[in-house]
Amino acid sequence: MTVATQGPVRVVGTGLLGSSVGLGLTRQGVHVQLADPSRTALALARDVGAGHVARAGDPEPTLVVVAAPPDVAADVVAAELAAHPHAVVTDVASVKGYVLTELTAAGVDLTRYVGSHPMAGRERSGPAGAVPDLFLGRPWVIAGSGSSTPAALLAVRALAVDLGAVPVSMDAAEHDAAVAVVSHMPQLMASLTAARLRSVDEAALALAGQGLRDVTRIAAGDAALWTSILAENAEAVRVVLADVRADLDAVLEALTSAAAATGPEDVAPGVLSTLAAAIAAGNAGVARIPGKHGGAQRPYAVVSVLVPDAPGELARLLTDVGAAGVNLEDLQLEHAAGRPVGMAAIWVLPPAVEHLETTLAAGGWRLVR
Amino acid sequence: MTVATQGPVRVVGTGLLGSSVGLGLTRQGVHVQLADPSRTALALARDVGAGHVARAGDPEPTLVVVAAPPDVAADVVAAELAAHPHAVVTDVASVKGYVLTELTAAGVDLTRYVGSHPMAGRERSGPAGAVPDLFLGRPWVIAGSGSSTPAALLAVRALAVDLGAVPVSMDAAEHDAAVAVVSHMPQLMASLTAARLRSVDEAALALAGQGLRDVTRIAAGDAALWTSILAENAEAVRVVLADVRADLDAVLEALTSAAAATGPEDVAPGVLSTLAAAIAAGNAGVARIPGKHGGAQRPYAVVSVLVPDAPGELARLLTDVGAAGVNLEDLQLEHAAGRPVGMAAIWVLPPAVEHLETTLAAGGWRLVR
Repeated sequence: MTVATQGPVRVVGTGLLGSSVGLGLTRQGVHVQLADPSRTALALARDVGAGHVARAGDPEPTLVVVAAPPDVAADVVAAELAAHPHAVVTDVASVKGYVLTELTAAGVDLTRYVGSHPMAGRERSGPAGAVPDLFLGRPWVIAGSGSSTPAALLAVRALAVDLGAVPVSMDAAEHDAAVAVVSHMPQLMASLTAARLRSVDEAALALAGQGLRDVTRIAAGDAALWTSILAENAEAVRVVLADVRADLDAVLEALTSAAAATGPEDVAPGVLSTLAAAIAAGNAGVARIPGKHGGAQRPYAVVSVLVPDAPGELARLLTDVGAAGVNLEDLQLEHAAGRPVGMAAIWVLPPAVEHLETTLAAGGWRLVR
Repeated sequence: MTVATQGPVRVVGTGLLGSSVGLGLTRQGVHVQLADPSRTALALARDVGAGHVARAGDPEPTLVVVAAPPDVAADVVAAELAAHPHAVVTDVASVKGYVLTELTAAGVDLTRYVGSHPMAGRERSGPAGAVPDLFLGRPWVIAGSGSSTPAALLAVRALAVDLGAVPVSMDAAEHDAAVAVVSHMPQLMASLTAARLRSVDEAALALAGQGLRDVTRIAAGDAALWTSILAENAEAVRVVLADVRADLDAVLEALTSAAAATGPEDVAPGVLSTLAAAIAAGNAGVARIPGKHGGAQRPYAVVSVLVPDAPGELARLLTDVGAAGVNLEDLQLEHAAGRPVGMAAIWVLPPAVEHLETTLAAGGWRLVR
């Protein structure tokens, strides 16, 4: 692969994102200069191969990537624009309007600035978590400043492509409104759902199924990080959450009315249709989420197989799936509380179902049909 | 395995649950009599091996399982108690207080009645979806009527155990409050979240990650079924949802205040702590969900590996995991939009991580560390 990014690239902030950018570029032969106020983070980033520590006399960077904490991103961008008068400067903060507003208020010339947001992350943080493949296949939003030059936009786009990401152009306001709906509001909904589990007893929790686990998984997110994101994107999140509350209020009113009824025939007109409309609206919304490979959701079929919880059993199953010549599109494992057996849901294209079921059954697998 | 259930067992309602009960018992040699107002459903249930069609002259059942639609469950239970004066009668409706209230209001003697709720289901419905393993490892709530005899409770408990389920005793009110929190409210939250996706453009949806997919997965649930469940458990769901709304209102107020601030230093006191508290409450709640095998959540570690999206690659990976002598505790696949590569998150016990990573790396796998 030919790398389009012309070095040197200066990375300011050597946390997970900055170090991963440095590592990905260094692996492709790009000269990377690293800077971070923390000497430890800086040395660690260098040690994991993210680049060399920036020093006086370094050649001038053509591109500066600011991966500083979001609350100081604008200040750092302004300082880098001033310090490197020929460089394109981008930042990777996860809220974009906030940074742009601060830069504009400070009267900074934004022709060489381009905001960006790689939609990537992982559980391990800091330079020790850095991986060159962090951005592989992920959307990377490119948000021009409004006065960004075409050359500046192209330089940041090249960076995203070189790191394996899929560049997506939108302005800061569009970006912030989009992530409010697809990321920030859902995070809050998961948190609000999980919060209700604090006060229930263990017998109730023992009834939890995969659905609850899915809805609440991201509620385990970092509180400090999310507080900062929500505060910085407050208006866009507020708008979406206000719509959620209006829907929730309608459901709550319907439930109150249904609870007051003495029997099903006594339920007030409109109550059941309000509940049905809430579920139907969710049906319509979830159907719009793009499926794998960026296309519209494909109607995969599921073949469910019981898998003994022993080493190698799942591998043996998937080997048999592969031997049947069937491509596994997705796989979900479901475990049963207190039982040494699980169920594997194998997602395949519908025409493959019959052949796969026959083959697996012949191979001694217990299918759940 | 010895079966404890003494037949004949009469199953009234041969949909997914009733047919699966019949199939599971028949496979173990129990005599099962099937009844359903739909001749088609009845014939299909017989054909899949759920039992034989009930007819005049059949021996009296010792146990009747009512798997009728929830809105007629109470009427059917009352009729079966009257028609079979020596049988224990149970129903499998997913809301229990509602059935009990109707039976009590009708003045039915409830010594031979035991409510139950197997926490099982699948995407295919009707007798054609029946599987003997549907209940394997799932919690099966046994909700005595308050006047159920010990023998009646024991008979229903034996049924659950014979079908491979894990019996859990709670009364109807406890059951309904528990499922309101762990199932019904989360269903609504997923629906309310997904509903917001109806009006966003495709560019925004293209930024959707695994988090949004997880939060909204169950929003695809059947609207008619959920309307009925929510209406029947209206009061318990209302109570939980009112608590959610109080939390949501606090977040919304904090967001409104943060959005009105001219800068981060201008944010009113308490705003950031309210947002942080909402996320922290979610952290605390999600940590209480029991992990695999019914225990408390174990601190599994994750080994992340890039997997080319080609037939057999995942099987090859899991074969290598098995060959390394490591037991895979869970597995999650994440696919990248528009890229022929995915990431497999392999959950293992922490002491196994280093050995597994070394072995996989040596085998040529690309680890995401």
